Amino acid sequence: MPEIHKSIPAPRPNRTVEEMARLLCCRFEGDGTKVISGVAGLETAETGDLVFLAAPKFRSLLEKSQAVAAIIPPDEPFRGIPVIFSENPHLTFIKAVELFFQPYRPDPGIHPTAVVSASAKVGTDVSVGALTVIGADVKIGDGTVVFPLVSVYPRVRIGEHCIIHSHVSIREDVRVGNRVVLHNGVVVGSDGFGYIKLEDGSHKKIPQKGTVIIEDDVEVGANTAIDRAALGQTVIRHGAKIDNLVQVAHSVEVGENAILAGQVGIAGSSRIGKNTVLAGQVGVADHVNVGDNVIAIAQTGIARDVPDGAIIAGTPELDVRDWRKASILLPQLSALFKDLKKLKARVEELEKRLQKG
Amino acid sequence: MPEIHKSIPAPRPNRTVEEMARLLCCRFEGDGTKVISGVAGLETAETGDLVFLAAPKFRSLLEKSQAVAAIIPPDEPFRGIPVIFSENPHLTFIKAVELFFQPYRPDPGIHPTAVVSASAKVGTDVSVGALTVIGADVKIGDGTVVFPLVSVYPRVRIGEHCIIHSHVSIREDVRVGNRVVLHNGVVVGSDGFGYIKLEDGSHKKIPQKGTVIIEDDVEVGANTAIDRAALGQTVIRHGAKIDNLVQVAHSVEVGENAILAGQVGIAGSSRIGKNTVLAGQVGVADHVNVGDNVIAIAQTGIARDVPDGAIIAGTPELDVRDWRKASILLPQLSALFKDLKKLKARVEELEKRLQKG
Amino acid sequence: MPEIHKSIPAPRPNRTVEEMARLLCCRFEGDGTKVISGVAGLETAETGDLVFLAAPKFRSLLEKSQAVAAIIPPDEPFRGIPVIFSENPHLTFIKAVELFFQPYRPDPGIHPTAVVSASAKVGTDVSVGALTVIGADVKIGDGTVVFPLVSVYPRVRIGEHCIIHSHVSIREDVRVGNRVVLHNGVVVGSDGFGYIKLEDGSHKKIPQKGTVIIEDDVEVGANTAIDRAALGQTVIRHGAKIDNLVQVAHSVEVGENAILAGQVGIAGSSRIGKNTVLAGQVGVADHVNVGDNVIAIAQTGIARDVPDGAIIAGTPELDVRDWRKASILLPQLSALFKDLKKLKARVEELEKRLQKG
Repeated sequence: MPEIHKSIPAPRPNRTVEEMARLLCCRFEGDGTKVISGVAGLETAETGDLVFLAAPKFRSLLEKSQAVAAIIPPDEPFRGIPVIFSENPHLTFIKAVELFFQPYRPDPGIHPTAVVSASAKVGTDVSVGALTVIGADVKIGDGTVVFPLVSVYPRVRIGEHCIIHSHVSIREDVRVGNRVVLHNGVVVGSDGFGYIKLEDGSHKKIPQKGTVIIEDDVEVGANTAIDRAALGQTVIRHGAKIDNLVQVAHSVEVGENAILAGQVGIAGSSRIGKNTVLAGQVGVADHVNVGDNVIAIAQTGIARDVPDGAIIAGTPELDVRDWRKASILLPQLSALFKDLKKLKARVEELEKRLQKG
Repeated sequence: MPEIHKSIPAPRPNRTVEEMARLLCCRFEGDGTKVISGVAGLETAETGDLVFLAAPKFRSLLEKSQAVAAIIPPDEPFRGIPVIFSENPHLTFIKAVELFFQPYRPDPGIHPTAVVSASAKVGTDVSVGALTVIGADVKIGDGTVVFPLVSVYPRVRIGEHCIIHSHVSIREDVRVGNRVVLHNGVVVGSDGFGYIKLEDGSHKKIPQKGTVIIEDDVEVGANTAIDRAALGQTVIRHGAKIDNLVQVAHSVEVGENAILAGQVGIAGSSRIGKNTVLAGQVGVADHVNVGDNVIAIAQTGIARDVPDGAIIAGTPELDVRDWRKASILLPQLSALFKDLKKLKARVEELEKRLQKG
Repeated sequence: MPEIHKSIPAPRPNRTVEEMARLLCCRFEGDGTKVISGVAGLETAETGDLVFLAAPKFRSLLEKSQAVAAIIPPDEPFRGIPVIFSENPHLTFIKAVELFFQPYRPDPGIHPTAVVSASAKVGTDVSVGALTVIGADVKIGDGTVVFPLVSVYPRVRIGEHCIIHSHVSIREDVRVGNRVVLHNGVVVGSDGFGYIKLEDGSHKKIPQKGTVIIEDDVEVGANTAIDRAALGQTVIRHGAKIDNLVQVAHSVEVGENAILAGQVGIAGSSRIGKNTVLAGQVGVADHVNVGDNVIAIAQTGIARDVPDGAIIAGTPELDVRDWRKASILLPQLSALFKDLKKLKARVEELEKRLQKG
């Protein structure tokens, strides 16, 4: 039986500072012949590592670092080791990381233990892992990697160059765009949570005949669930990034380049605008319209429509400044109550004296 | 190898308005010969679709709709297209949807790649999907569908006409009733989270020898986890509906027809009453008794027993009216503090003047 | 095909009270020949069951119990049935449970349907379940149980005597210590959620080249996700216990013997101290340092560093006493506003009278 996982990591070619600067299209200063053999953070760098300086406040860490070279902003005076200049050191560092590090991907090919329907259409250079199940009439685009133990229900479309990790379930008729990453345990297309209450108190299930559309360049974190719509579709727009353990209910629309952090929950039929960021554990009620470029602080409970550009916090949500003020005053409430009581007594005393007078 | 998923959806027979009304046991008005070829929501309906009107406020949507016919309440005056009358338009619409839409179900039969213990007893018309594992002494009732890649541990009982989706894990000795739906990634019977702290600071695991009982007509959403009890059992009562990513801890009892929305968490040994609704991200502390017919607003943190019929919100939970008032006043706290300070100054001034006097 | 699951539970040998006391190294009083045939909680005990008394307040339950014998503290006067004395009745009871109850474990051996890389090294007495995938260069220590349908990516190290339940995913290069338990659906080593925002509004993924290290004696609950670090590692320290549906982000460190209850979420690069307890649905912001021996009440939103030994609640977190006071006063806010208004009127009245005067 063929190997399911190619194992040997790509060799990591050492590069001189000069070569690295050239590959990154950056200017450098210092000894260009020094050899970079890895990449690391400022605090954990070892001999041979390339690091980056995000802001001047971290300079002391850089001065103490074992790194061989550093990517720094053009106006940074540090020259203790060879330096590579970049207007955006973090972004340039990421490009350097990509030169050294290739994430593990299995080889193309359909593993003999995969159960692939005869009617499924699998593109070129696709990897279908061991013990993965591909249903009837599924289409998978070129260059996509489906890891072992994935379940793809019938009539699903998966685009090109996607990464589908182990234990993902994609329910029937779901559409997945190009360059989409679904991490382990993701469920796409599970039934929306919709019932009608009958007179005997029981709940009649609303048929969930809609589907889910995931557009291009979306990433979905481990064990996140995205429900299908009862009618129509749940849509995750181009470039949205969704973290682990997020709940996206039926008929929700998540806007372009939106960010949903860990454990966010969005109830049915709500719309999240483009570029909007919901921090960890934020909840959004049903049928709510959250505008574009909104930022919601962690654990915000969004109960009403939110205008574009708002920054919000609290349950129910408030403007973040109001919420901060209230948060600071909350522990002083007890003193406030006492103060008011005392003041009342003083007023009473004044009233008595005036009456006597 | 046989197909794992039958693919061809059932043909969707077009029906005239008259036929539809007859099948739904409803009166109609308008051109009964018009042909209904699908079902849709008011806003997305296309030519040929049947829609329903939930409330008079949506009438303008209906007037603009492309729908061919509408289910409406008896007192609704709209007659722009053929109309079918119902006291409960949504419920009647659901019945119409069921006439048009059959959710995907694999054919009965045990897939040759399934690993089914010789001692397992599988009923008639059961579907056991590809690469599903059925442990020793498991019993599965007639008409149940077990999708591919499901793990059923030994001695589990699953009733009749259940739907068990891919990547569900059912741990040993769990009992699942009839017509139960377990969505993808559900875990039933995982160990309860119980430890005793020892003197050296480490935690000794409390053996989890109990189990989980899921009664009839329960539905459990994607990636939800229901823990087994240390002793005795965790029980999900008849007709309860549980959404995605919900945590039900050891020895919890979820009442008949209760509704647990997405990301609800219930700590150990708590009891949720019948017909109670916990909205999204509600948390319930351990050993708490939440009564019948309770409604908890999203993100409520229930720390104490809750009487029957209460409507609650906040952390810790308050009567919803108290919570609403407090929520409105919170952003005014800052002004309140200032007001009090000013008033103090005025009182001081008065006191001074009186002393002088 | 061999059985995947051994089914027959170990016979449960009945023991007399005298034998039981001897095995537990405890003194007993009463009829030592009485036969114990099981273990149970006080309220559900049936004839033949051994129970324990946690505190004097439960004595009336013990008096009504059907139990055959009870483990009680040395100073407890109850003698209605044979009693076994222990300074820590719960701990002694757990030892008794372990004598009666062996959790289900499959037999050692590699199931013929498992897909195990030729380069994987599997220790002695290891069980690899049906349809489990073990990648290249994986090492699994002696006595470890890997249930069916597990996905282990290449170069993973798993220690000795671990339990890995169905539908666990362990991503490449992750290190798992000894005696670690991973419950169903756990994901270890998923990509951290890190992006850089580009000028066109899109998000560039930060390569996640780090890994996860899980030390010895850790337990991780169902459907919990632990992300790998971008650089370096996410670390779960010795003896930490993590409940279901918990989110541990990239580069987090969870301290020795820490407890993370259900649905806790910890954002990137934060540190949770040793022995710290985060109750259900607690959220921790990124780059936060939570000290040792901290207790966070359920749903706390930790936004700032927390000193050792603090007990906290609320969002953002407060000392629990301040939070309790504020919680009690919140529903009185409305009355406070009214009171202040009335007092203002009285002061105004006084001012008028003094001016007149």
